[in-house]
Amino acid sequence: MSKLLILAEGYLADPHHGKTTRGVVNYGQNEVVTIVDSTFDGTDFQGIPVSATIAAALVHGPDTALIGVAPTGGKLPSEFRVQVLEAIEAGRDVEAGMHEFMADDPELSARANARSVELRDLRRPPDDLSVPTGANLEHAADVVLTVGSDCAIGKMTIALELHRTAQNQGRASVFVPTGQTGIAIAGWGIAVDAVVADYIAGASERLVLEGASQGDLLWIEGQGSLIHPLYSGVTLGLYHGSMPHHLVLCHRAGDLRIDGWPVHTIPPLSELVEIYERAALPARPATVAAIALNTSRLDEQAARVAIEEAEAETGLVAGDPFRFGSDRLVEAVGTAIETRKA
Amino acid sequence: MSKLLILAEGYLADPHHGKTTRGVVNYGQNEVVTIVDSTFDGTDFQGIPVSATIAAALVHGPDTALIGVAPTGGKLPSEFRVQVLEAIEAGRDVEAGMHEFMADDPELSARANARSVELRDLRRPPDDLSVPTGANLEHAADVVLTVGSDCAIGKMTIALELHRTAQNQGRASVFVPTGQTGIAIAGWGIAVDAVVADYIAGASERLVLEGASQGDLLWIEGQGSLIHPLYSGVTLGLYHGSMPHHLVLCHRAGDLRIDGWPVHTIPPLSELVEIYERAALPARPATVAAIALNTSRLDEQAARVAIEEAEAETGLVAGDPFRFGSDRLVEAVGTAIETRKA
Repeated sequence: MSKLLILAEGYLADPHHGKTTRGVVNYGQNEVVTIVDSTFDGTDFQGIPVSATIAAALVHGPDTALIGVAPTGGKLPSEFRVQVLEAIEAGRDVEAGMHEFMADDPELSARANARSVELRDLRRPPDDLSVPTGANLEHAADVVLTVGSDCAIGKMTIALELHRTAQNQGRASVFVPTGQTGIAIAGWGIAVDAVVADYIAGASERLVLEGASQGDLLWIEGQGSLIHPLYSGVTLGLYHGSMPHHLVLCHRAGDLRIDGWPVHTIPPLSELVEIYERAALPARPATVAAIALNTSRLDEQAARVAIEEAEAETGLVAGDPFRFGSDRLVEAVGTAIETRKA
Repeated sequence: MSKLLILAEGYLADPHHGKTTRGVVNYGQNEVVTIVDSTFDGTDFQGIPVSATIAAALVHGPDTALIGVAPTGGKLPSEFRVQVLEAIEAGRDVEAGMHEFMADDPELSARANARSVELRDLRRPPDDLSVPTGANLEHAADVVLTVGSDCAIGKMTIALELHRTAQNQGRASVFVPTGQTGIAIAGWGIAVDAVVADYIAGASERLVLEGASQGDLLWIEGQGSLIHPLYSGVTLGLYHGSMPHHLVLCHRAGDLRIDGWPVHTIPPLSELVEIYERAALPARPATVAAIALNTSRLDEQAARVAIEEAEAETGLVAGDPFRFGSDRLVEAVGTAIETRKA
């Protein structure tokens, strides 16, 4: 177990780029002892003290610094470089999930060597990846993949919530991490967006087989969206490599356009259900078992209405696990599994 | 201009794994002076003498050895390693399109240094790639992407054939290479299957912008298939990154299953048309302008019947450019462009 200092300068309040921070605080196996974001100095985040500087953060006793932001494109923002160097100088290990690896940076690796600290690049893929073998169709586990209308709307956290609920119900449930935050949370996994493009499906197959060795109900952390103009390739490779039996479709209620890309519209939920079900390969049909609505931008009454409307439009069970619990969604997935096996 | 020796040991007669050899012989800008494949020693391939060994091949005066096979997964087959070392020892540059880079191999790079020869890894991506900028929707060129039912059925050669025909008609036509063979042929490009998965679309956008600076009718070399269990992620990332206006759907007549994966079926052509058109983003709808049928496994009468049936099933112009010429397909693409702009 590590004691984490999370570097989140300027991003603590940002639900998109700060999603690593939120995920690790809420679901991680390691204790977060402090968060560095000078714009929130002196406050706390879910009970965790926020510090303005690395020096001030050290009094909380962290042994590891984790970069808690997920910038577009995956490069280390320059403002974080100084803080990473300070953490190294203070003898703390550093974890990061960038596409640019810290260990490949001559200055960072030299300083880390000099201080005998470890630089852990969570997105560095295993060096023996290849294409799928076909074993993704042959294990015994039930596979559920979270998919969605956009990035950063809750695909990972929905998978974690449904996994937790299923685990509390006594199921041999496994959360399967496919991105840097999931890896930081669960302590294993492969960032499928960081592998050689030809190996997306192969990496996804490997994760499913590892999951199937741990349990019989797998919740695969989804990535991107089939309708996202930047990341759809990763989404489809993960889909076909993990060969899910069922999907949980995640959407932020009210969103009509891809975040940051107003030219790219999001179709209605019923059409999204069809797009995702049609994208399954004939050898492994997949059904959307439930809709997970992120209602964080609505008041409670509007949230209930949005959920009712989603159910009426799609004929599926819908819900917001963060607001109203996960039981109905997990039950809907269980029903879909039983129906398939009947 | 190089004088090429192509290494194709055991694969010269294999239309799938030998596709690099065929592409470079038929479309490449460099002269191929000999091909090494001991199983065809003493014969010729389209007039090019075949040699049994590197030593025997050197009499034909090559200055560069090109690995002419495309193995699944992209790793250098061990039987080629000996030949690569012999070519280096003989002072020849070596080009290869594997995912494993020659220049990163300590033995190969040390031997190449000692002999002052160059190792060119055609699949090594530029080191400044990132996600798309949105400029793929803003240039003035007409973009045509070849898509298909499977790998290695002719998506690259169809793009090359239609490009040639359009060029002969006086159009400012550009072939846009997206894979190692296309790069070996055209002398530029990025192997989009070899980039970091998050950057597939970004690399594809960059290729389209480069193409749009060279001409106004772009033929994008397609990769994989949306229904391929190994490579579909690359296919969708290339699709959404290149933002084509029109598609040419390639299929090998008679194929009902993905090559090598009998569990994965190929749907009817009309359904493939729908799958590909539905996969376009709303901001850039794409239509299938024509069907390119590979009829190489049929006799001439059966080929004509297959083409007629494809036209009847889809309502689109169909043809086999290798057997019956490209004019009708290029005309159909031209009509699609005019209809769109009308």
